[in-house]
Amino acid sequence: MNISDTVADIKCMKIRGAGKIARAGAEALSDFADGYEGTGMQTFLGDLDEAKKALLGSRPTAVSLWNGVHSTLRGVTDAKDVGEATALIKLNADKFITSSENAVRVIGEIGAKRVQDGDTILTICNSSAALSVMKTAHRQNKHISVYATETRPWRQGILTARELDAEGIETTLVVDNAVRSVMKKVNKVFVGADTVTSHGSLINKVGTSHVALAAHEARVQFYVCAETYKFSPMSLYGDMVTIEERDPSEVAAPGELPETVRIYNPVFDSTPAAYIDAIITELGMMGPGAVFGVMTHQLGYSALQL
Amino acid sequence: MNISDTVADIKCMKIRGAGKIARAGAEALSDFADGYEGTGMQTFLGDLDEAKKALLGSRPTAVSLWNGVHSTLRGVTDAKDVGEATALIKLNADKFITSSENAVRVIGEIGAKRVQDGDTILTICNSSAALSVMKTAHRQNKHISVYATETRPWRQGILTARELDAEGIETTLVVDNAVRSVMKKVNKVFVGADTVTSHGSLINKVGTSHVALAAHEARVQFYVCAETYKFSPMSLYGDMVTIEERDPSEVAAPGELPETVRIYNPVFDSTPAAYIDAIITELGMMGPGAVFGVMTHQLGYSALQL
Amino acid sequence: MNISDTVADIKCMKIRGAGKIARAGAEALSDFADGYEGTGMQTFLGDLDEAKKALLGSRPTAVSLWNGVHSTLRGVTDAKDVGEATALIKLNADKFITSSENAVRVIGEIGAKRVQDGDTILTICNSSAALSVMKTAHRQNKHISVYATETRPWRQGILTARELDAEGIETTLVVDNAVRSVMKKVNKVFVGADTVTSHGSLINKVGTSHVALAAHEARVQFYVCAETYKFSPMSLYGDMVTIEERDPSEVAAPGELPETVRIYNPVFDSTPAAYIDAIITELGMMGPGAVFGVMTHQLGYSALQL
Amino acid sequence: MNISDTVADIKCMKIRGAGKIARAGAEALSDFADGYEGTGMQTFLGDLDEAKKALLGSRPTAVSLWNGVHSTLRGVTDAKDVGEATALIKLNADKFITSSENAVRVIGEIGAKRVQDGDTILTICNSSAALSVMKTAHRQNKHISVYATETRPWRQGILTARELDAEGIETTLVVDNAVRSVMKKVNKVFVGADTVTSHGSLINKVGTSHVALAAHEARVQFYVCAETYKFSPMSLYGDMVTIEERDPSEVAAPGELPETVRIYNPVFDSTPAAYIDAIITELGMMGPGAVFGVMTHQLGYSALQL
Amino acid sequence: MNISDTVADIKCMKIRGAGKIARAGAEALSDFADGYEGTGMQTFLGDLDEAKKALLGSRPTAVSLWNGVHSTLRGVTDAKDVGEATALIKLNADKFITSSENAVRVIGEIGAKRVQDGDTILTICNSSAALSVMKTAHRQNKHISVYATETRPWRQGILTARELDAEGIETTLVVDNAVRSVMKKVNKVFVGADTVTSHGSLINKVGTSHVALAAHEARVQFYVCAETYKFSPMSLYGDMVTIEERDPSEVAAPGELPETVRIYNPVFDSTPAAYIDAIITELGMMGPGAVFGVMTHQLGYSALQL
Amino acid sequence: MNISDTVADIKCMKIRGAGKIARAGAEALSDFADGYEGTGMQTFLGDLDEAKKALLGSRPTAVSLWNGVHSTLRGVTDAKDVGEATALIKLNADKFITSSENAVRVIGEIGAKRVQDGDTILTICNSSAALSVMKTAHRQNKHISVYATETRPWRQGILTARELDAEGIETTLVVDNAVRSVMKKVNKVFVGADTVTSHGSLINKVGTSHVALAAHEARVQFYVCAETYKFSPMSLYGDMVTIEERDPSEVAAPGELPETVRIYNPVFDSTPAAYIDAIITELGMMGPGAVFGVMTHQLGYSALQL
Repeated sequence: MNISDTVADIKCMKIRGAGKIARAGAEALSDFADGYEGTGMQTFLGDLDEAKKALLGSRPTAVSLWNGVHSTLRGVTDAKDVGEATALIKLNADKFITSSENAVRVIGEIGAKRVQDGDTILTICNSSAALSVMKTAHRQNKHISVYATETRPWRQGILTARELDAEGIETTLVVDNAVRSVMKKVNKVFVGADTVTSHGSLINKVGTSHVALAAHEARVQFYVCAETYKFSPMSLYGDMVTIEERDPSEVAAPGELPETVRIYNPVFDSTPAAYIDAIITELGMMGPGAVFGVMTHQLGYSALQL
Repeated sequence: MNISDTVADIKCMKIRGAGKIARAGAEALSDFADGYEGTGMQTFLGDLDEAKKALLGSRPTAVSLWNGVHSTLRGVTDAKDVGEATALIKLNADKFITSSENAVRVIGEIGAKRVQDGDTILTICNSSAALSVMKTAHRQNKHISVYATETRPWRQGILTARELDAEGIETTLVVDNAVRSVMKKVNKVFVGADTVTSHGSLINKVGTSHVALAAHEARVQFYVCAETYKFSPMSLYGDMVTIEERDPSEVAAPGELPETVRIYNPVFDSTPAAYIDAIITELGMMGPGAVFGVMTHQLGYSALQL
Repeated sequence: MNISDTVADIKCMKIRGAGKIARAGAEALSDFADGYEGTGMQTFLGDLDEAKKALLGSRPTAVSLWNGVHSTLRGVTDAKDVGEATALIKLNADKFITSSENAVRVIGEIGAKRVQDGDTILTICNSSAALSVMKTAHRQNKHISVYATETRPWRQGILTARELDAEGIETTLVVDNAVRSVMKKVNKVFVGADTVTSHGSLINKVGTSHVALAAHEARVQFYVCAETYKFSPMSLYGDMVTIEERDPSEVAAPGELPETVRIYNPVFDSTPAAYIDAIITELGMMGPGAVFGVMTHQLGYSALQL
Repeated sequence: MNISDTVADIKCMKIRGAGKIARAGAEALSDFADGYEGTGMQTFLGDLDEAKKALLGSRPTAVSLWNGVHSTLRGVTDAKDVGEATALIKLNADKFITSSENAVRVIGEIGAKRVQDGDTILTICNSSAALSVMKTAHRQNKHISVYATETRPWRQGILTARELDAEGIETTLVVDNAVRSVMKKVNKVFVGADTVTSHGSLINKVGTSHVALAAHEARVQFYVCAETYKFSPMSLYGDMVTIEERDPSEVAAPGELPETVRIYNPVFDSTPAAYIDAIITELGMMGPGAVFGVMTHQLGYSALQL
Repeated sequence: MNISDTVADIKCMKIRGAGKIARAGAEALSDFADGYEGTGMQTFLGDLDEAKKALLGSRPTAVSLWNGVHSTLRGVTDAKDVGEATALIKLNADKFITSSENAVRVIGEIGAKRVQDGDTILTICNSSAALSVMKTAHRQNKHISVYATETRPWRQGILTARELDAEGIETTLVVDNAVRSVMKKVNKVFVGADTVTSHGSLINKVGTSHVALAAHEARVQFYVCAETYKFSPMSLYGDMVTIEERDPSEVAAPGELPETVRIYNPVFDSTPAAYIDAIITELGMMGPGAVFGVMTHQLGYSALQL
Repeated sequence: MNISDTVADIKCMKIRGAGKIARAGAEALSDFADGYEGTGMQTFLGDLDEAKKALLGSRPTAVSLWNGVHSTLRGVTDAKDVGEATALIKLNADKFITSSENAVRVIGEIGAKRVQDGDTILTICNSSAALSVMKTAHRQNKHISVYATETRPWRQGILTARELDAEGIETTLVVDNAVRSVMKKVNKVFVGADTVTSHGSLINKVGTSHVALAAHEARVQFYVCAETYKFSPMSLYGDMVTIEERDPSEVAAPGELPETVRIYNPVFDSTPAAYIDAIITELGMMGPGAVFGVMTHQLGYSALQL
């Protein structure tokens, strides 16, 4: 898909889910390079930079997009000409997409081992990694039952319910307000991740911290399913993850409320490490205290000198 | 209004809110007696009993309706004739309605004293008693700001936002999932009550216990605004408050989900006493530990012999 | 049964359970009076006093015994002669025994309403009142499953398991150490009471506070089944309930351990009010905050002047 | 003492402690009436009202003073002449003072039963009622050891340490910041009360809620020693207890800090009911859930109609 | 000892404790190789594999056994002949046994530094590593006092009490139900480990999580004494540690209960990371958040690719 | 400055704050070497060792001093002569001082990113690293308001208030007892560190754990600002950080209390990892679970063999 369509689809949430966004970013750059018709390297790099900025701007809070885009462009400025650059970009994008897709499968396999026959699971929003766990467990003939929360305002729970139902998994939809009501019947919670910070907190769809709190209150295990490219390097430097605020019209139709009523529509919230039992990644299952170590392993300590 | 219209309006939630339901029940019985054309006492009492059952059946979980109906019919079987019975019913209904309406005002006055200039308040659903607190505080020229939660599936938060805005109170609507996100900015929570049990727990609109949990986590005071007719006598005998389950179509439009997906749509949830700082009633402010004492004071211990 | 046999049976725990002890005390005094052969009132009262002291000494921490004995002897010193005194004692004992036995039935009926079809229940030791709840629910055709904890050192859980099994209730025995392991499968806990203090804490078989803590951690409801004669009047005056320490040989056979190893064998422990959801009594269900009010209602405030 | 000296002594904290303030108020009115030289009843009542207002104004947050003053003036307006009024005032004052002084003794006796030989106790500020517990236990030959916290800014802990030491009680003074450090060695905390609200929270010397929180964290019992005249009737109507703010110079000497630095010097703080194990009063020991019941017993429900 | 005797001794719990089991497995393989009489490498490897499977099957949940066996067999398939293989196996076994025995000593030395003169310690079951801490502290002339819990059903607490008493350490035995009763007198808890998972939770003798919960409630430090060979590599991949269920006859004698009563007899339970203050290993003292880092350091990240 | 003056200044707390102490130690050794007049290497090393011991003895609990001194003396014994040794010491000291000073700046920059416009911050004592965060945020034109706690007995809060005020930051001083009172108005807490242990707990000025507990209770983020040279290598081996006890006269003037009153005056307390949201270091922001990994990275695992 071309850059502007990809940007538009990410903005309007047609492309949703951190993994899909990251892969869409990688793929868009690959297609961009593939279809590029000019031959001047300078112009190419300039156009590429604009493409990069457009993509990053479509969802500025998505660490995965940042990782996907940067992984795809790695080494490009060292290329001799547009042909070599294009080849590199396509290779990088392929590698990133494959590894990202594998991550979801590996997380599914690890997570499925935490699921026991007869378990009742709760999930929020529509996370590929979390769904991978449930589908894998189901395919291993474990009988599971899933509560999908509606997840206002975008109601991604409808998507989740359809997706689980299509797999033949017993699914119940509940409004977000009913999470605590059903929590006593739940054995495990699996959620996705938008970002994981260096001190082990989770940034994810607004409401996730509510689910975590209710799970903690009832001694229900809370698992985060996260590819390690969601571990935010910026958080090492203290950056607060900006909680994007979306259009009020997603919550109330124009005219439904007087204009003097404010509507606050944040996309994400923050779940503290204390409410997370384990983070399931393609590198294995770990506690939130291990995130800093994984990040410094991947980046090296020297990258951390300010 | 006549009995069947009242029953219909309660069933379809056109009449909403425990106080309004109770007063509607009282008024319907008063109108029924007022317009009654027969003169035979036996027939009258039989018809009255049917009216009573129809009303109680319109919302079997509403303790206030039970109290409103029983208060209105108190002493009727001792009346000499239809005329005397009618007079008594009208008197009882008037008294109940007046006292119930005063209760909301008194609760508003007590609760407003808990509000300080500059406070940020959060409320759920659309409770007359809780709104009375905010309006009274506002009329005392305390500058307050209120978060109203959407309260899916019926979205009574829209009504609350309109009502507060009409009073000139600064109001922000948030989806239910954002309650924990905004809780750190909140000073006090005021909610209504469907029922208060003899051991001090609160039955109210589903999501209330979520709000209470999030308030408790952040050391935010959580106040229940409840007329004492909401103290459930049945709970003394151990009765579990039945959590009414409503039609799935309130949550997802027919056809929006495959038929194999279940939709669980409970109306209420239960908030434990431990998350309640105080209950504000027309008899004063008390802790949840005081409810049993108030109930036995009003009913007498002898009523408790099983 | 005569006084000394009753004392012996209570001491060696052949008579066990607060209600049975209290009724045994009442019955022993009744039999003592009934079979008394002297006619001198002074001698009678002296002998009676010795009987009373012997009974109270058989289990000094049992508030129910104190209440049972004192209820039986109420008014005796005002009697004209031994005949009248004997008649009064027999009447008092009968009343106390009937009321006490009714209490267990009423508590069973109230508690059974808290039990839902399909519930898994956990209980500790061998409490008539708690068993009454489970049996009543079972007889109402609610399908329940019960975990009985072994309750070392006397292993009263064996008795409980037999008793429930004889009723046809699905029962599982677990060692005391497995309580937290099975708690996630439990919906409700019902325990008996040795004593309830004026500030709402529970004194009961050692391990009860462990069960309560594990229930609290997992958001499982914890119900105390207690006749109001177990509300300790002495606790109003601050008396600490003495935790009886029993013979080491109940824990380890003589010679099993070197003599220098101490064995600490307390009978009871104390569960704080914060871990108790409700106390189910023959006067209705209440929170722990209501105990002081019930006690002052029964004793009158004037009794409280020190 | 005369009115203005009493007012001055209360204001400058020469008279300290809720009981002493209340008795000082009662005594001042008694002395005022005793020494009154006019004979006109109207003038007398007017002067009396001024005296009353002056006294109440010396410490507006002290519920005990309100109770002491009102108890002393009870029935005065019904007196026939100044002589009768004076006699009544002196009688009322005597009764109040005696009952108040007895309260401290009774609380000491009840509380001392909670103290066990070898206990380590912690107290804050300088509360007669709490000290009465420790002294009574010591006089019963229980060996106790007490941590007294310094209690900045007025350092009343110095007084407490001197007073305990004079009794021969082993005493250690610590700075307020060391409370959590020593809490693991403490068995019980006894504190006084400025006010107890109708929903069971405690208003007392700033820092008390800190002590309560640290005790709660370490499972240390936290006892409030409070005469029932400290139960605030105004809190039934929702009144927030105003937290008096005192002069900055009590915290930092004038000139010690630039003028642009603000100094916040509150006298009291609020401890939630959840951190209070029991309240020891002259009517017995109770949980915080019992306060509303005691207040309505003493005032009658009718007094509560708004 | 030969393979079948070792297997039998592990199965019947004659060989108990993770370290001893692991060393027994290593030693049995060493003895097996030493006494092997054939010369054909294929046959040898086949027989060795059977021996390995038999050993691993004797306690499938013991990670230490898995580590001990695999460490001993490391490199064997690369050996040229039976002689070389035998030599390697004996060397590996010696190294593992030495290192494992040193681990207990090192853990004892590190743990003893956490013990202060006068401390009261609580321990469950019969852990060599935990006992090493207490013995080392005692030999350093720190006066300590230890509570050993009985640890039903196998009552390993009796062994612990004998072992501590033989060292001259002041020891008290309590039933498992009394853990919370004595916890207020305890300064530190030291327990062993069956397995530590990659997200920092502890699998150990059933009841351990109860002790941890009670320690957490009372702010008592909870230390896990664990050789790093107990860090489970399988948990990185999400494997749930199977909680072995043992014979009902260990809990109740055959015939003691009707056959319809089920007996649930799990060997282990799981303690969450949140209740663990520190894990003491031969590599130093760490928090539970450090386990993943230590495991990836020892295995390398590449071993983690699925 | 010379050794003895430095030792004296550290002892009397004229030199305060871990960073300043460490740099003072490094500088004193540098000056000592610089001004050394002898030429015999043996004598020099002996004198140097005495200087080292004197410095370390001036504040035995200060890990930073240990690190500063050892960093400065690294490699000295390998030097050929006094001249080379002196050059090395001066170089080491310069490097340590520079790196230490940079650490404070880097921590300030990272921490400032956690500060949002309008935040209210609370700090205890007088920590350069924590102050660096506030000053950096202020210089970035974020409007902040700070509560400085008095921090008895040395009242370092006075210094902090002066320092913040001089920067133009809105500052309020409160007594230590008022921390919980103002906590509801606070968004973030930043504190310094004396030592951080290998299992992630914080040793800092007495009262810090109080602040952390109150922050935890109110869901306020608690940040530790710590250079990594404060990570204690000794804690890997289990060493308890000795809590220094200072002179009673710092708390009460001589004669202010009878001699039989003990005064306990500890300098530090210990804050558990569970109350720490993040540790901000010059290597980035991490959770307390990451400390062990950073230490083994810096020391190497081999250094850990005991």
